[in-house]
Amino acid sequence: MADTFSFRLDKTDGAARVGEITMPHGLVRTPAFMPVGTRAAMKAVHWQDVRASGADIALSNTYHLMLRPGAERVAALGGLHTFMSWPHPILTDSGGYQVMSLAEMRKLDDSGVTFRSHVDGAVVALSPERAIEIQLLLGSDIAMQLDECIRLPAQRAEIERAMRLSLRWAERCKRAFEGAAGGRALFGIVQGGDDPALRLENVRALVDISFDGYAVGGLAVGEPQHVMLSVVEETAPALPADKPRYLMGVGTPDDILGAVGRGIDMFDCVLPTRNGRHGLAFTRLGPINLRNARHADDPRPLDAQSRCPAARDYSRAYLHHLTKANETLGAMLLSVVNLYYYQDLMQDMRAAIAQGRFEDFCRETREGWTRGDLPPV
Amino acid sequence: MADTFSFRLDKTDGAARVGEITMPHGLVRTPAFMPVGTRAAMKAVHWQDVRASGADIALSNTYHLMLRPGAERVAALGGLHTFMSWPHPILTDSGGYQVMSLAEMRKLDDSGVTFRSHVDGAVVALSPERAIEIQLLLGSDIAMQLDECIRLPAQRAEIERAMRLSLRWAERCKRAFEGAAGGRALFGIVQGGDDPALRLENVRALVDISFDGYAVGGLAVGEPQHVMLSVVEETAPALPADKPRYLMGVGTPDDILGAVGRGIDMFDCVLPTRNGRHGLAFTRLGPINLRNARHADDPRPLDAQSRCPAARDYSRAYLHHLTKANETLGAMLLSVVNLYYYQDLMQDMRAAIAQGRFEDFCRETREGWTRGDLPPV
Repeated sequence: MADTFSFRLDKTDGAARVGEITMPHGLVRTPAFMPVGTRAAMKAVHWQDVRASGADIALSNTYHLMLRPGAERVAALGGLHTFMSWPHPILTDSGGYQVMSLAEMRKLDDSGVTFRSHVDGAVVALSPERAIEIQLLLGSDIAMQLDECIRLPAQRAEIERAMRLSLRWAERCKRAFEGAAGGRALFGIVQGGDDPALRLENVRALVDISFDGYAVGGLAVGEPQHVMLSVVEETAPALPADKPRYLMGVGTPDDILGAVGRGIDMFDCVLPTRNGRHGLAFTRLGPINLRNARHADDPRPLDAQSRCPAARDYSRAYLHHLTKANETLGAMLLSVVNLYYYQDLMQDMRAAIAQGRFEDFCRETREGWTRGDLPPV
Repeated sequence: MADTFSFRLDKTDGAARVGEITMPHGLVRTPAFMPVGTRAAMKAVHWQDVRASGADIALSNTYHLMLRPGAERVAALGGLHTFMSWPHPILTDSGGYQVMSLAEMRKLDDSGVTFRSHVDGAVVALSPERAIEIQLLLGSDIAMQLDECIRLPAQRAEIERAMRLSLRWAERCKRAFEGAAGGRALFGIVQGGDDPALRLENVRALVDISFDGYAVGGLAVGEPQHVMLSVVEETAPALPADKPRYLMGVGTPDDILGAVGRGIDMFDCVLPTRNGRHGLAFTRLGPINLRNARHADDPRPLDAQSRCPAARDYSRAYLHHLTKANETLGAMLLSVVNLYYYQDLMQDMRAAIAQGRFEDFCRETREGWTRGDLPPV
């Protein structure tokens, strides 16, 4: 186990970066995609398949875990790595985003946020200090500061208020995190909505506090892709080059190409598993909706060239049948297909950046997607 | 691929038998447990885990497959083995049982049964000839005759009527099956409810027609265990010793011990996967209900000595959390645990019969179950 958290930047190609993060439970190759195991489980995917897909790190959600099974319980059971049998790196969010989007009877002030638990109806308080305490109990490799994430579009005054509140919470999280066991990292979160001046002001203030890495938050909250990428393009260059940069909650394969091209190193998103559950497979030839009747008699696999057994070993006709019949196996197979696709995309991006051909890679990849699947049999 | 279906009886111990069936897609060690993939899928279990658990043969349901995706479609896609990527032996039922228990607007007469499809509302007819045609299209290694299965208790006249109808259908199925590709087998089904005289009369008539194997049907339909075992005890000895004997839809581990001890060779049941989805694990120490709060803080695995990774690699606390949170992974892990448990029980029975210690084995196994799990931590 490494007792220091460190980021090594190996090569840049334009704004795109390839590197490696060392953390207590292992190495994370960047650009990295972190699949999301909200309640200490990937939905419908065995942990060994998460690993086999190529994931170096998984994300889990503080909000859900603090309510059930509870952070103190997870700590008594040996921490989150032991609890969910994932001995590799873990990033936990702060709980803030889910409190804002999911919790009932939410009340927010400078001290933090209180809300009603959806599990047992209890009133729960989450302060910056408690968010850090919970993440230390869970034992994640990377903890996130508590922040307030608002939906876009929003008024500038509202964006600024949330940004300043998040900044005060960033300072308190940093203090609360001091003295954490060796090698654990705390990331600050840049807020500021779609306002470049607020974003840059927030970057400077967070860098003054000094974090182990920096996330761009408050995106993928309803804005169009060009707004998101424009904010990333203005924010990322202002962040320290020697720290990892994490774009929270993003996104589609195309979003990730765009954000890596603008200097982002880390991503998380539920899309691969959620879309898999809904019958949608990501492939080299674009997304394929297995619910579509055109697949009912198609004996071909999703992608005979895929590294993923589920994409090679089952016919489209079978996957169509499973999704139409709402068989859990359909969700299981397509979720695995999508996790492999995302990780293959990350691996191919890393190779392309290392070879100085990231721009060509993006063009070729997008051409593949627009080819729109193989012709029908 | 074997082009003959054959049963080799290796040893008997009391009425218990150990042997091996050779069929087109492989060997089946008996006594055998056949997990159920109703709609060409095991619920929440990957096919590679079905195989790894030790299953030699899987069962799939004609009723569901004839309605969706359709037998002609499966045939055009290369048959059921190819369709569901299970290259090992498959038994299909005739569809009769599910028509009786699931279908709406059911109308039964000598010609067969008509009903309304739950998939698209179409009126569908299932005759003995069509039941065989469908199973030949699916390409199963073992096909079952169409029969009428009634619930118990029932009046003797009603039992006799259904038995005689099933017998007429048995003759028609046998004729329809003649000329089937080499190595495929057709089993007759003994009906007769809980009436020993009707059962024995039916056995004699079916043996006169001559089948590749004989099923005891019409049990596990609501009667107490002692009634079921008593019918098996009276019926099995009358069946030809050189053909496999299959007790349909049975059962709990204890049911299987009892029926193997009375001369049965084959079983199928949804219990391992259904109970897994409901949070119940079968173990050497009896069933364990993971939903119970006593497991919430228990760091121990379900059974550290199990051959099943899921029983060794995850804590009871984690499995409890998954079942309480209704995470699909909980159903996935416990279904696999239970499939392994059933197959381990079959393997241990086969070894005990071969060693002439089946009675001791049954006593030891039941003692293990009544020990009622490890003491709490």
